[in-house]
Amino acid sequence: MTACPTRVVAGVAICVLGLSFGTLEAKPVTVADLLENSQASEWRTPSPADILYLELPKGRVVIELASKAIPQHAANIKALARAHYFDGLAIIRAQDNYVVQWDDESHQRALPAGIRSSVEFIADAGADSRFQKLPDRDLYAAEVGFLDGFPAGRDPRTHQVWLAHCYGMVGAGRDDPAESSGAELYAVIGNAPRQLDRNVALVGRVLKGVDLLSTVSRGTGDMGFYTASETPVPITSLKLASDVPESERSPIEVLRTDSATFRAVLKQRREHHEPWYKYSPGVIDLCNIPLPVRTPAKH
Amino acid sequence: MTACPTRVVAGVAICVLGLSFGTLEAKPVTVADLLENSQASEWRTPSPADILYLELPKGRVVIELASKAIPQHAANIKALARAHYFDGLAIIRAQDNYVVQWDDESHQRALPAGIRSSVEFIADAGADSRFQKLPDRDLYAAEVGFLDGFPAGRDPRTHQVWLAHCYGMVGAGRDDPAESSGAELYAVIGNAPRQLDRNVALVGRVLKGVDLLSTVSRGTGDMGFYTASETPVPITSLKLASDVPESERSPIEVLRTDSATFRAVLKQRREHHEPWYKYSPGVIDLCNIPLPVRTPAKH
Repeated sequence: MTACPTRVVAGVAICVLGLSFGTLEAKPVTVADLLENSQASEWRTPSPADILYLELPKGRVVIELASKAIPQHAANIKALARAHYFDGLAIIRAQDNYVVQWDDESHQRALPAGIRSSVEFIADAGADSRFQKLPDRDLYAAEVGFLDGFPAGRDPRTHQVWLAHCYGMVGAGRDDPAESSGAELYAVIGNAPRQLDRNVALVGRVLKGVDLLSTVSRGTGDMGFYTASETPVPITSLKLASDVPESERSPIEVLRTDSATFRAVLKQRREHHEPWYKYSPGVIDLCNIPLPVRTPAKH
Repeated sequence: MTACPTRVVAGVAICVLGLSFGTLEAKPVTVADLLENSQASEWRTPSPADILYLELPKGRVVIELASKAIPQHAANIKALARAHYFDGLAIIRAQDNYVVQWDDESHQRALPAGIRSSVEFIADAGADSRFQKLPDRDLYAAEVGFLDGFPAGRDPRTHQVWLAHCYGMVGAGRDDPAESSGAELYAVIGNAPRQLDRNVALVGRVLKGVDLLSTVSRGTGDMGFYTASETPVPITSLKLASDVPESERSPIEVLRTDSATFRAVLKQRREHHEPWYKYSPGVIDLCNIPLPVRTPAKH
């Protein structure tokens, strides 16, 4: 199953370089191989205070909030979740190759006290020091990489960093003007709409269960909104994991984007030396980089 | 509804430049506005001999074959359709943010006579002269543009042109070695997997009904294959439009990629001057370019 020995002193990187055990021939190493050989310390466990459970009739969507990058929206969304603001609402829009969206379309619910709309298109002032730059080129940003584990762009002239609209990212819908609160949420379910970068506050990403969003029937109205004859998917609840009893949580670990295994995954996905590939792309788009998650072995 | 007058001498381009009727102010013009103002001659009607109807229980998926670019695969797929090869098979794989695939998983059906496997990763020898180059940069190809209306890449050193793995593109699945016949087909339902370019023969694209593919329940097996406990979506039939009575066809027109309206759409989608956008990206990824289709007005 795996082309690398499961225990080598210098770990996964050696396998990827094809230098293990005296052979100079490049060995095909899959992402699954690399993850199997990863170290426990290469995985992080997001704080339950930053995890949302979007409960749908068919199951649970696990979302990690980018609480450091967009503090006002994160605070709002946590307050909204605690006030049960989203419970009993519905997915009101599903536009193919674009987004699904859920909010109080009829504007009947009052926002809980303390919710403050703001413009958080750009990440917090400290983001520049946390940005992990990749060598990869990009069309929409001068630099790309990761911020707190989320795909991000950066402008080296302004030192601004922003989250990027990759598949599975979650954002705060807004009208015009630019402010948003987080009471309207959407998830990207199509080709990365990077033109939205710096135009919307992204608030996190789906770690698990994105297919529960990507498979909902598309709305036939303008922009994928449902018409009166269509039945939207109801939202059972949106809760913080920290507000759910520990026995009911979904344990999850995320591969650190500053780990050796993540670098090896990236290299594999740029080069694709496995025999099936006849042409090695040698490049990778930010939004084609896998961001592995796993259920801890003890569960 | 529309920011442009519906009849102006020089047409849509003038509106897009914001120069219509003496105003120098840029007017927001949506893609819908631009299409509304298009000329009839800017639309093409694909030949029914190049259109496939993939009939699923929930409806019809309309696929245009890239018959010029990949002649051997197109001939094979037409022969397979005429032999009812796909009828009664099923979607056997649905991998989130990647592809759905349909073929004879159990290898019980014989291929009709005349099917010849080949490697058509690169388009036909005449493709270089038909390639419409865009000014836009790309990560995966030195040049990008359109070939016969399909998104494509080009290498100016080798003059090779190939179809690009954008959302809704349809390809010929293969094992290793590299040959494929078209008896295994897949459609892209996620972020453009451009690493597959030049590694698989793309055979066409979905013009209509892609949501019937993108919303199927994902398989829980490896690579999105269905496990024994899951119920795949059956394929009622896969037919050529030319083999269907005219009264049962789905009339469809495709905006020409060499038309003024298409250029205006592209410019709008690069610049996004509508008020909602606070930041103009100024660039566009090949796979974010809309390829408009419509039902002719007479139907």
